Amino acid sequence: MDEFNLHLTGDIHAITAANNLLAAAIDTRIFHEASQSDKALFNRLCPPNKEGKRTFADIMHRRLKKLGISKTNPEDLTPDEIKRFARLDIDPQSITWRRVMDVNDRFLRKITIGQGPEEKGMVRETGFDISVASEIMAVLALTTSLGDMRERLGNMVIGNSKSGEPITADDLGVGGALTVLMKDAINPTLMQTLEGTPVLVHAGPFANIAHGNSSIVADKIALKLVGKNGFVVTEAGFGADIGTEKFMNIKCRYSGLVPQCAVIVATIRALKMHGGGPEVVAGKPLDKAYTSENVALVEAGCVNLAKHIENTKGYGVSVVVAINKFATDSDAEMNVVREAALRAGAFDAVICTHHAHGGKGAVDLGIAVQKACESQSQPLKFLYPLDISIKEKIEAIAKSYGASGVEYSEEAEKQIELYTKQGFAGLPICMAKTQYSFSHIASLKGAPTGFNIPIRDVRASIGAGFIYPLVGTMSTMPGLPTRPCFFDIDVDIATGKVRGLS
Amino acid sequence: MDEFNLHLTGDIHAITAANNLLAAAIDTRIFHEASQSDKALFNRLCPPNKEGKRTFADIMHRRLKKLGISKTNPEDLTPDEIKRFARLDIDPQSITWRRVMDVNDRFLRKITIGQGPEEKGMVRETGFDISVASEIMAVLALTTSLGDMRERLGNMVIGNSKSGEPITADDLGVGGALTVLMKDAINPTLMQTLEGTPVLVHAGPFANIAHGNSSIVADKIALKLVGKNGFVVTEAGFGADIGTEKFMNIKCRYSGLVPQCAVIVATIRALKMHGGGPEVVAGKPLDKAYTSENVALVEAGCVNLAKHIENTKGYGVSVVVAINKFATDSDAEMNVVREAALRAGAFDAVICTHHAHGGKGAVDLGIAVQKACESQSQPLKFLYPLDISIKEKIEAIAKSYGASGVEYSEEAEKQIELYTKQGFAGLPICMAKTQYSFSHIASLKGAPTGFNIPIRDVRASIGAGFIYPLVGTMSTMPGLPTRPCFFDIDVDIATGKVRGLS
Amino acid sequence: MDEFNLHLTGDIHAITAANNLLAAAIDTRIFHEASQSDKALFNRLCPPNKEGKRTFADIMHRRLKKLGISKTNPEDLTPDEIKRFARLDIDPQSITWRRVMDVNDRFLRKITIGQGPEEKGMVRETGFDISVASEIMAVLALTTSLGDMRERLGNMVIGNSKSGEPITADDLGVGGALTVLMKDAINPTLMQTLEGTPVLVHAGPFANIAHGNSSIVADKIALKLVGKNGFVVTEAGFGADIGTEKFMNIKCRYSGLVPQCAVIVATIRALKMHGGGPEVVAGKPLDKAYTSENVALVEAGCVNLAKHIENTKGYGVSVVVAINKFATDSDAEMNVVREAALRAGAFDAVICTHHAHGGKGAVDLGIAVQKACESQSQPLKFLYPLDISIKEKIEAIAKSYGASGVEYSEEAEKQIELYTKQGFAGLPICMAKTQYSFSHIASLKGAPTGFNIPIRDVRASIGAGFIYPLVGTMSTMPGLPTRPCFFDIDVDIATGKVRGLS
Amino acid sequence: MDEFNLHLTGDIHAITAANNLLAAAIDTRIFHEASQSDKALFNRLCPPNKEGKRTFADIMHRRLKKLGISKTNPEDLTPDEIKRFARLDIDPQSITWRRVMDVNDRFLRKITIGQGPEEKGMVRETGFDISVASEIMAVLALTTSLGDMRERLGNMVIGNSKSGEPITADDLGVGGALTVLMKDAINPTLMQTLEGTPVLVHAGPFANIAHGNSSIVADKIALKLVGKNGFVVTEAGFGADIGTEKFMNIKCRYSGLVPQCAVIVATIRALKMHGGGPEVVAGKPLDKAYTSENVALVEAGCVNLAKHIENTKGYGVSVVVAINKFATDSDAEMNVVREAALRAGAFDAVICTHHAHGGKGAVDLGIAVQKACESQSQPLKFLYPLDISIKEKIEAIAKSYGASGVEYSEEAEKQIELYTKQGFAGLPICMAKTQYSFSHIASLKGAPTGFNIPIRDVRASIGAGFIYPLVGTMSTMPGLPTRPCFFDIDVDIATGKVRGLS
Repeated sequence: MDEFNLHLTGDIHAITAANNLLAAAIDTRIFHEASQSDKALFNRLCPPNKEGKRTFADIMHRRLKKLGISKTNPEDLTPDEIKRFARLDIDPQSITWRRVMDVNDRFLRKITIGQGPEEKGMVRETGFDISVASEIMAVLALTTSLGDMRERLGNMVIGNSKSGEPITADDLGVGGALTVLMKDAINPTLMQTLEGTPVLVHAGPFANIAHGNSSIVADKIALKLVGKNGFVVTEAGFGADIGTEKFMNIKCRYSGLVPQCAVIVATIRALKMHGGGPEVVAGKPLDKAYTSENVALVEAGCVNLAKHIENTKGYGVSVVVAINKFATDSDAEMNVVREAALRAGAFDAVICTHHAHGGKGAVDLGIAVQKACESQSQPLKFLYPLDISIKEKIEAIAKSYGASGVEYSEEAEKQIELYTKQGFAGLPICMAKTQYSFSHIASLKGAPTGFNIPIRDVRASIGAGFIYPLVGTMSTMPGLPTRPCFFDIDVDIATGKVRGLS
Repeated sequence: MDEFNLHLTGDIHAITAANNLLAAAIDTRIFHEASQSDKALFNRLCPPNKEGKRTFADIMHRRLKKLGISKTNPEDLTPDEIKRFARLDIDPQSITWRRVMDVNDRFLRKITIGQGPEEKGMVRETGFDISVASEIMAVLALTTSLGDMRERLGNMVIGNSKSGEPITADDLGVGGALTVLMKDAINPTLMQTLEGTPVLVHAGPFANIAHGNSSIVADKIALKLVGKNGFVVTEAGFGADIGTEKFMNIKCRYSGLVPQCAVIVATIRALKMHGGGPEVVAGKPLDKAYTSENVALVEAGCVNLAKHIENTKGYGVSVVVAINKFATDSDAEMNVVREAALRAGAFDAVICTHHAHGGKGAVDLGIAVQKACESQSQPLKFLYPLDISIKEKIEAIAKSYGASGVEYSEEAEKQIELYTKQGFAGLPICMAKTQYSFSHIASLKGAPTGFNIPIRDVRASIGAGFIYPLVGTMSTMPGLPTRPCFFDIDVDIATGKVRGLS
Repeated sequence: MDEFNLHLTGDIHAITAANNLLAAAIDTRIFHEASQSDKALFNRLCPPNKEGKRTFADIMHRRLKKLGISKTNPEDLTPDEIKRFARLDIDPQSITWRRVMDVNDRFLRKITIGQGPEEKGMVRETGFDISVASEIMAVLALTTSLGDMRERLGNMVIGNSKSGEPITADDLGVGGALTVLMKDAINPTLMQTLEGTPVLVHAGPFANIAHGNSSIVADKIALKLVGKNGFVVTEAGFGADIGTEKFMNIKCRYSGLVPQCAVIVATIRALKMHGGGPEVVAGKPLDKAYTSENVALVEAGCVNLAKHIENTKGYGVSVVVAINKFATDSDAEMNVVREAALRAGAFDAVICTHHAHGGKGAVDLGIAVQKACESQSQPLKFLYPLDISIKEKIEAIAKSYGASGVEYSEEAEKQIELYTKQGFAGLPICMAKTQYSFSHIASLKGAPTGFNIPIRDVRASIGAGFIYPLVGTMSTMPGLPTRPCFFDIDVDIATGKVRGLS
Repeated sequence: MDEFNLHLTGDIHAITAANNLLAAAIDTRIFHEASQSDKALFNRLCPPNKEGKRTFADIMHRRLKKLGISKTNPEDLTPDEIKRFARLDIDPQSITWRRVMDVNDRFLRKITIGQGPEEKGMVRETGFDISVASEIMAVLALTTSLGDMRERLGNMVIGNSKSGEPITADDLGVGGALTVLMKDAINPTLMQTLEGTPVLVHAGPFANIAHGNSSIVADKIALKLVGKNGFVVTEAGFGADIGTEKFMNIKCRYSGLVPQCAVIVATIRALKMHGGGPEVVAGKPLDKAYTSENVALVEAGCVNLAKHIENTKGYGVSVVVAINKFATDSDAEMNVVREAALRAGAFDAVICTHHAHGGKGAVDLGIAVQKACESQSQPLKFLYPLDISIKEKIEAIAKSYGASGVEYSEEAEKQIELYTKQGFAGLPICMAKTQYSFSHIASLKGAPTGFNIPIRDVRASIGAGFIYPLVGTMSTMPGLPTRPCFFDIDVDIATGKVRGLS
């Protein structure tokens, strides 16, 4: 195929453009507010039309409504209303909205902007994230329709006013333009596997600071496509601790859809690691614990699998375990896993070889899933209701990890208080935690208990619709290695074909 | 139409991505070089393949060739060759390559990057330009084929090594990947006017720091489409001082194409301004000098038109003047212009009303152009040959403005010396000058003489293929106003149609 | 002498320490206010004493008085009073107080501070000036007593609150500590000339952004020392345009002292330059216009001297011109100057050779001054009263330069409005203008007329007691040359004597 | 007393000025080198004298000698010698020399400098330390004479050239000027106690990144003053782990002096903390474990005292323990300490009450010390010889703490390699470790064992004469609290006396 195209369907570019338009709107608005009186600012925001009459742009009615001002003629506003309407009074320290770029550019992680002489010393520390870490990606993944996306984009909160009010994209007048930039991206891309099975590719939010699932829109379209008796398979990134948890409590809540069966993928290597096997280091040869039979290690690691099964069953769905067989895995090791899975309450546990044999290698898995779906009939049980406090929700999730409790930093306490005061306490929670352990410590394997989850800070993606507590430090902008893969990428001039991407 | 799409055909996104990938490659390479020995760096650049043998990536042979190293086995390199190959030793102060964004984000004009703790204090001042100001846009506009684009992208110079050698995208190993990112953008977009005439839209480089013409590829395709007796009209931004000059000396040189006729567009308002009319300020009502008949002002301003005609004829092409008629322009004023144009040597001067009447309003112009083309038979005479010094070329262009001479800053002298030493003196020149005057002073109207052109600095777009002297300060990143137009842009949720763009 | 000591009497160190303590107090206060509620902030500012009772520090009564709060018990304040008292709410953009260092450190001219992780992104652009440019130096030069200095230091304004109120050192609680740091520096240093004449050395404020005269305290002590019939000579930096003007309108106003005679120093070389002689460039040999007789040039330049005499006489003082004779000056040139001076109204004009012959060479000058003092009896006539507007004062001074008018930038207009609103319009004006011309253009020699003075910005030294309009850009931090003089400075270890300073 | 003076004797100002002159010299030199050719740079460094002959400044002969160039006439240097001499080629990333200020200014901890337009984008991240943290303070404390100080100041290393050569103050031509700035500070200040005992106050280097002892010069002068049979008492900051260790291995090595007796001060409260008592938090009331008798806690804590005695005796000196008695300490507790001290090998252990009773309260201690001095006759045994590797020295010190081993970060490994290559491996070691524990973890009390000491980074104070490994993060710039003590400082205007300092 010569259709390799590094831009894919342009969704990332649309997200990048929208994200950065909002960022530019923030700094420019602060800049213009700084140098103009309330009245001058207002007059510029509401210039006279051709008949010489001042008017509000349509989008401004959203802000007027938020402020409880029901007037429609700019001339009728009192000086105080003019001030409240025109002056967003954004606190630069409170801005959480960063710029994004679809390039691994580590030197943009932390930057100072506004150093040009025309910007009059209004410098600010900020940074770039990789484009997929934009809240707009999470909005795309969680939205259910164009109208819903319009609201979510307009409701994205970029920081606070100096008096603590949340400032949204619509306050900045840019929610409509963001929607226009995103309006084509809302359509999923239809692709197919090598065997011709149709696949919808749509949205890829980070699985730590966001929820890591593909889009609700794609799932809904797929369900329509397959009809009443068809099957739609969708993926939830990472394990049951954060992958399943966010899939159920965030995505299913927003979609209203209920999964009929959950497939948990297990590998002998991962279970050996959870059983206490030596550390696996990229670039170094695998320890022989992983390349030859070691039933004891596998057995020890099954405590991790059991915990994933148990947590997943808690949502009321049947669990099928898919054991991905590698060449060096022995039958004895396979059996140990199978038995452990069934003991932990799995509906079935099936050995799969699709990586080696394509669709044929997953036929047994398919049959098991089909049976599980027929048997299931429970309603979806969420881990927590939405109407409890932010802290209670965090604690419910922490308990599902096996934690004893939660410790909050001062910063986290302050943000929880702020979001509660701003009226955002009713949102679901999206934990930004390592995927390498049920706990917050990557090296804690198996099914640890007796630990406290530390919450370093708490952030919010109001437009996407969740609060995300930070458990440790998450990198949201990767770097390039000394030898990036682009060294191998080129175009064959004679044929126009791309080399180095396959 | 509901197909308004702010991403157009994605070309700008491709340029943005390519530009910024190169930027990330620069800083990351400096970073990795700083912390590794020659040998370690080399080993990482040339890792062993599956057979355990170190190899060069294909693209590395470009650098090896540049360094005069003819070995093909990494193991054969001497320590000195390893050092010269692996260590680009980029001087951070010399980097002219900036990042770009397709958003008017004035706070990115001047920034400090690398302030994250992992970047170990390797901070650097740089900035973002608007995407169209990227050299890659100029490359796209001047390239003639995929293979040619591959070479131009690889040859782009981002700065110097500490010993003064130019460092290219290919030295960084990224020329191939840039080409892959740009490979679809090389195809022009076919659109049509409201009357159905086909139009090719392709490339839009800045007309000051670049040459401001649409692409050679589009012109060539258009010529094929219209066939032997057809006509292709292409635009050169700005007036004959920089628009025509760059079209002839840069674009025609690279394309090998020769124009048969030049159309110069004139308006009464512009000529009045050149004749000494009062300043026109955006947002303020026009002075009555412009809204009522004032033959004397028009007459005085025709000296400007005459100079444009004279300069254009110097290239050996016939000139037809198109006088764009506005409602307030009087016949007497029109006549003055017509006579002045013919006196200055124009083949014809025709009154046009296509803005009011569509194609019909330009029929006379079409006929005049057709006649002019039939009459023309001279070869293209360039303003300067390529094999004279950079300064001689600059001075030739300055003289065509009417200038007495040229003054170089220390910085400019230093850069001219550097580019000459680096072997780039044979490139054409692309003056970054104001379009408001033949001189460098925007308020100097008419056809001024007796001024010296000051060259503040000299830069180079080696991949695109020109040296660009800076005459004054050019802004390459616009800002948003207090009330940006995005306030009016939104999607009609019911219909999905875009509002506010037409 | 081996007593060369680069620290002199420590005054500069005291100014540096005081200036920078205030700077640290500003940023730290902003930092602490950002993270604490009104109440918490107040409780920390007014902690309980040993008896467990909250108290105000003495200095806080200054702020309470300013705010019109007459309570003395912290417990009695209302929440609103607590907020107004505890929260200075400094607008970071408004801060004009910079740090200083007594080193020529050009890399500190513009810096970004607050980039440490503990400072939580509260970065700000600011810079260092050379220590003598500190307002505290100007305070030292204009103060009249310890009590007066205490008030001036406490009244220094560092910027505004977000609502536009001026914030002072006393608001920050640091006026007392600044006075303690400066309390020994208020005493002048008594030194002597090579011939044994006593000299008081005290204070050296910049002559552009400040008033450039030595201290009032030193003058007053000197007047006491010499008694009723003695003479005190004091210097005013630069010419009559800014030197005399500031001496009269600022220093004399604050000291209440009246000069009896003004000595204007003239040199043939300077007058030749003002007469149109070629430019003098440091490091290049002098043009022969300066090294051989050229009466015509001198004559042409005397228009400049005449303007200085005229302006100075305007204050009601007699003027004696001291013509500093150099070896290459001819008698004919001297005579021209002498006659021009008398013609312009000088009481006398005397040739002096003290540079070559010591005190003997200035005997005639001394006699002339003595006579002039006996003859003088007019009261001091200021150039402008204090109770007119800031602009009227600026215009009065501009007219004394020979200017036709004044042009204000937007920035300047805004600051004039702010200072007027803040109640500072009654202060004298201290023009920051070049000393090379009566105009703002250094190359405009003689006694130019017909120019407008552009006011780029307006600043204030409220503690020192003046408003200073910026006419052009003033450098307040010098740099070191490639070969600084410190290359020659060392200690002779054997003797302990310093080399390279004489 | 009204002689409170915040500037003390001006030593800190001298250190500040010298430190910052060197800092300015570094950045300016890089700046000038960047824009000039080798030849131009050389010509400026060695300008012609009055006879038109180029000469080397005296200080340049130091650099010529270092480079092995024996020529004395600048005209004789070859182009390569010119380049090596004139171009220091400082690697900005390698600069360890920071600026200092004698103000607690936390916003200067991390800054970006060089952002002015004239500095042409040569920005760099750096910061300010508090003045006492300057290497020049350590030089002052360790120097033995004016000549020795001249050498140490000239030898201070500020970073490396790009090829890894150490760059010194003398390479920058500023060693002499630094000495001139410091030449008065080398003299100790003679003060007296309330009882009239003479005290020499001189130098106060940080006890973590430097060695924390007062000056050698003061000790030597004191020894002369007291004569053959007199006693000089000097202090070593912190405990035997870093205080005694650095006193012996660094200060005594450079002074050549040998202590006759060591006094270790013990308090009941500290021993209770080391025995496992509850944490003591500033501002909170003391736990009753500290305010009432608890013999068991004291007994448990004596393991810490024993370790201090043991380590100190290892140097060959007698140890007398001074038990500082507080009102709440019981006799039983005192006895436990006394017995433990004697058991651990102390010559004596004496209860002291000088804090309550002045000199009388320390008479017993004086007698005990006198006896100990008479008995002692061993030579000083250093903990390590100088001619072993840096790592061996670090490990010897770590073992004296009770550590099992040492762990080096990559950064530390790299610096050790660099310093060894640069020829600095023969210097003594100055550990930058917490004073709260024998280990690197402040909360590890008693006499812990079984821990590894982590070396985060390694720095060097070559002029002062030691390598300092960083064990954890040291803050070298304090901040101001919300309510700084300056709120209480003022001058009584009537009397001129200072308030708020006592």
